[in-house]
Amino acid sequence: MQIVGELINASRKSVGQAIKAQEAETIKKLARDQYEHGAHYIDINAGIFVGKEKEYMEWLIKLVQEVVDIPCCIDSPDPVVVESALKLSRNGRPMVNSISLEKDRFDNLLPIVAEHKCKVVALCMSDEGMPETANDRFAIAEKLVNILVQKNVSPDDIYVDPLVQPISTNKIYGVEFLNSIEMIMTRLEGVHTICGMSNISYGLPKRALLNRAFAVMSVLKGLDTAIMNPLDANMMANIIIAETLAGKDEFCMNFLEAYRANRLDI
Amino acid sequence: MQIVGELINASRKSVGQAIKAQEAETIKKLARDQYEHGAHYIDINAGIFVGKEKEYMEWLIKLVQEVVDIPCCIDSPDPVVVESALKLSRNGRPMVNSISLEKDRFDNLLPIVAEHKCKVVALCMSDEGMPETANDRFAIAEKLVNILVQKNVSPDDIYVDPLVQPISTNKIYGVEFLNSIEMIMTRLEGVHTICGMSNISYGLPKRALLNRAFAVMSVLKGLDTAIMNPLDANMMANIIIAETLAGKDEFCMNFLEAYRANRLDI
Repeated sequence: MQIVGELINASRKSVGQAIKAQEAETIKKLARDQYEHGAHYIDINAGIFVGKEKEYMEWLIKLVQEVVDIPCCIDSPDPVVVESALKLSRNGRPMVNSISLEKDRFDNLLPIVAEHKCKVVALCMSDEGMPETANDRFAIAEKLVNILVQKNVSPDDIYVDPLVQPISTNKIYGVEFLNSIEMIMTRLEGVHTICGMSNISYGLPKRALLNRAFAVMSVLKGLDTAIMNPLDANMMANIIIAETLAGKDEFCMNFLEAYRANRLDI
Repeated sequence: MQIVGELINASRKSVGQAIKAQEAETIKKLARDQYEHGAHYIDINAGIFVGKEKEYMEWLIKLVQEVVDIPCCIDSPDPVVVESALKLSRNGRPMVNSISLEKDRFDNLLPIVAEHKCKVVALCMSDEGMPETANDRFAIAEKLVNILVQKNVSPDDIYVDPLVQPISTNKIYGVEFLNSIEMIMTRLEGVHTICGMSNISYGLPKRALLNRAFAVMSVLKGLDTAIMNPLDANMMANIIIAETLAGKDEFCMNFLEAYRANRLDI
């Protein structure tokens, strides 16, 4: 599982305050901690700062790259913010989070993604709203992937996010999401799937328990990238365990390595 | 999920000793505890006592029925033991654990199951040994179900156990088992699936974590009956959570009821 560390997000109160106060050390520590706990990308989101998003995004990207070697995941729908952040990216190949089939977002971001040859999250969202069924999600995913590939984006650089919706709203939302993961991974050759888990439990108590079990199910269905908090030891352990059970761990070596490093002591 | 409580099994040291010493209160407490924690059946196994299995089985069945109203699951391959236990069964419709395609077991138990109209666990095992792939499991399941149905056993009374094998032996064993659950539940109309989880983690550390995640995956694939310890609060909570995520819990009512009863405080 590839992990995109989600903690440097201005919509989290403490992070928003740290950005506003320009507390560089707070941000650097968040980057370092996530890297040390297994993140492969550091997501950066300064979206709450209307009018200052570009300035803060640039500041954040520079700070993060001072302390870790892994690439950033540029989390903004604004093409100006995305392009300036891509130009500052030095660590490996950055990811853009995210393009979708919404016309404005799509038209603005497609040329940038195609030009910079970056990795890209392809959100299963269109101007008709959020899809509800696995088939609707797959239809959007297929269109997005086809267009991106026509623009010479490699399937291996595309991370399809089928969008998790809360199980409290409709009991089928879990299964429809999970089936879309399976459809995308088996029918759209070479692409990845990505998501954040926590929407599944929105509106319910005991959210961590729901999120963890949903992660286990997602791994079984083929999810290979997660946007999450890598400092959540319980979630990280459950992902390792799920990969072992899902047949992705030769001789259980990854499981046993995690066990010996006390990463299964949850 | 229907729960078959597994604790009254003579191969557990303390239970074996209690049976040998005829400690009725120990057995009654095990039956009562499992019932109060959500068991729908009480499995009874006296298999280690060669030559005395029938006598002990009869004693156990009578004791259990004194204290709980739920049916027993008669866990023996011996037709003499099974038939005498069936004749003593008073609480609802008992289950026999288990018939298989192994010739002796099959020939001996089929007439008893057909005559007594009991529920029956159909083990995916033949004289060729344990199946390894989902297809091999399904082939055995289909044969067993077809023969049972021909003998007027209702599909609703058949609980197919595809047999969990340890993931430490072969990394595909988890997925092959899980896929067989899905095949059986979608292609053999009206039957149930049943299993014990714990074999999946045989030979590995942190077994409880592996068993729980495997239960979550099994529920997603359609498993509707589990042979387990209903006093394992963590496992029970994970099964409730998995059913909610798998779309089997209208308005999350079962989840919320468990939450309010503190059954998710794990």
